[in-house]
Amino acid sequence: MTEAANRVVRLRSRPVGMVKHDDFEVVDEPIPEPGEGEFRVKVEYVSLDPAMRGWISPGKSYVPPVPIDAVMRSFAAGYVDKSNHPDFQPGDAVAGMLSVQHYAVSRGERCYKVDPSKAPLPRWIGGLGMPGQTAYFGLLEIGKPKPGETVVVAAASGAVGSLVGQIAKIKGCRAVGIAGGPEKCRYVVEELGFDACIDYKAGNLAEDLKAACPDGIDVYFENVGGEILDAVLARMNMFGRIPVCGLISAYNSTEPVPGPTNFRSILVNRLTVRGFIVFDFADRMAEANEQLGNWHAEGKLKMREDVREGGVDAFTDVLNLLYTGGNFGKLVLKL
Amino acid sequence: MTEAANRVVRLRSRPVGMVKHDDFEVVDEPIPEPGEGEFRVKVEYVSLDPAMRGWISPGKSYVPPVPIDAVMRSFAAGYVDKSNHPDFQPGDAVAGMLSVQHYAVSRGERCYKVDPSKAPLPRWIGGLGMPGQTAYFGLLEIGKPKPGETVVVAAASGAVGSLVGQIAKIKGCRAVGIAGGPEKCRYVVEELGFDACIDYKAGNLAEDLKAACPDGIDVYFENVGGEILDAVLARMNMFGRIPVCGLISAYNSTEPVPGPTNFRSILVNRLTVRGFIVFDFADRMAEANEQLGNWHAEGKLKMREDVREGGVDAFTDVLNLLYTGGNFGKLVLKL
Repeated sequence: MTEAANRVVRLRSRPVGMVKHDDFEVVDEPIPEPGEGEFRVKVEYVSLDPAMRGWISPGKSYVPPVPIDAVMRSFAAGYVDKSNHPDFQPGDAVAGMLSVQHYAVSRGERCYKVDPSKAPLPRWIGGLGMPGQTAYFGLLEIGKPKPGETVVVAAASGAVGSLVGQIAKIKGCRAVGIAGGPEKCRYVVEELGFDACIDYKAGNLAEDLKAACPDGIDVYFENVGGEILDAVLARMNMFGRIPVCGLISAYNSTEPVPGPTNFRSILVNRLTVRGFIVFDFADRMAEANEQLGNWHAEGKLKMREDVREGGVDAFTDVLNLLYTGGNFGKLVLKL
Repeated sequence: MTEAANRVVRLRSRPVGMVKHDDFEVVDEPIPEPGEGEFRVKVEYVSLDPAMRGWISPGKSYVPPVPIDAVMRSFAAGYVDKSNHPDFQPGDAVAGMLSVQHYAVSRGERCYKVDPSKAPLPRWIGGLGMPGQTAYFGLLEIGKPKPGETVVVAAASGAVGSLVGQIAKIKGCRAVGIAGGPEKCRYVVEELGFDACIDYKAGNLAEDLKAACPDGIDVYFENVGGEILDAVLARMNMFGRIPVCGLISAYNSTEPVPGPTNFRSILVNRLTVRGFIVFDFADRMAEANEQLGNWHAEGKLKMREDVREGGVDAFTDVLNLLYTGGNFGKLVLKL
């Protein structure tokens, strides 16, 4: 199939609460030509990440918001189809910040070659992409898990959470997940190898957490916020560590979100709570890539992509799956 | 004046909200005799600290609660008047965990000699005691202030806060205090040398904080919690640090205290929030004592004791001053 146009997703308004269809518009535009030192990528897969909700919000955040009318920012993967760049040739598989569009022009910044013979393209923007790096640095550099300690992670069947627990197991820890529904919990324990997984939808979060963590919690990898954070704070051990990489439960809120009632646990238990994003460790990505790749090759890291059809027209609906727990594995949109 | 009895303050019930007179009882008891390897101290001054409210609460905290009917725990200073201990002689001035009573028997644990020729006794349980150690380790080890950065501390005219700002100035930082009322604020700026001090009772906390911290906040030494924490979180700079040594505003609450609404700032600004108590650095107290003593000798550390009369009978009323902002300087009760 040849395409006469570049189909792009542009941000038209800043969403209030959940993202609406009107907030984005799919537009047919001329296919861009790469200039001097540039190359063009035919994008095949777009990564959908919880952080996107922050990228389209007006408030102060860790990256500038996507401007109104701009193409929606995203991590994505595809093949170079035309190049004026010495390091990228037509046919090269690449992954990077290519945005939600069929054709992207890049100068090679925040875009790198990947090897599709080692892993399929969706995986290079899945577990071996930003989520893997996020789990790796957040758990190891901030969580600092020691053998025998208990590591808890929410959204445990998700892209980042699933890797946090598996890396915790590699490091000799007890890994306890929190996920929504028995199917996800079974997957987390039986397929990913966590020691336990709590179904937060079952309504016994505090009791289930106590049962699953008889020795308390030493590391809580925070990516959801809300009542789960509060329940965990009540079970943290002395000198516990809480890397904070996301607060999904708050992303779509239109009201100020209450902070954790058990904030005092930080003082009482002398916790270290530290926010981070993967770009904070940008200069060590090669190290993480190699280690994650090795563990993956040794069969120690299982990961799952949830690849959705529908192309750019389905972008809004697929994005919202992240905030309703509708996805199962790293969410990827096939163009 | 000779005393025929040991007057002691015993905890009779766990207070709900503010401490009530009935929660404590003053009892006349026989003066205890030191046994083998023990010495007896005639206590002259008792230190009153915000942490005491936690010590008499039933909940999990960083030290076991004072048992019902036990003598109330406190830091205190006095003179040895009888000894069967080789290292302590009658006449030695000492400070340590001696509890709220006229005569205390000790084995020398958590009790050490002080030199009353270098500083008066109340100062050895004031700025040169636990508050100084708390400020020293919390600011330097967790806050890690760099020259030119902005350090904010609440309860700035208090024992710990006043030293946090002065140490920040020694380290080349901009020191901004928060205190209640114009008199305290004037003291903080004019006598202690802070660059600015905000009167939180003036009702313009957010705006005043913005004006006083034009370059944002790099270190917030947290000792109060509540709305001040929220206002500060909204002004924190990227990679800021928040040592948490107290949450005074919550100590007397009978309801669950809402957490900080701006908790998300931890993620957005990649903050490090770390709880601590001075005992976490117990093995480095000599270092802090020497450094604080040197700065004090060089005239770089001003401190003020608020010594109250009234003896053990006034204990409850004087303690409550800590939670109503009624004291001005390190609160000490003279026996």
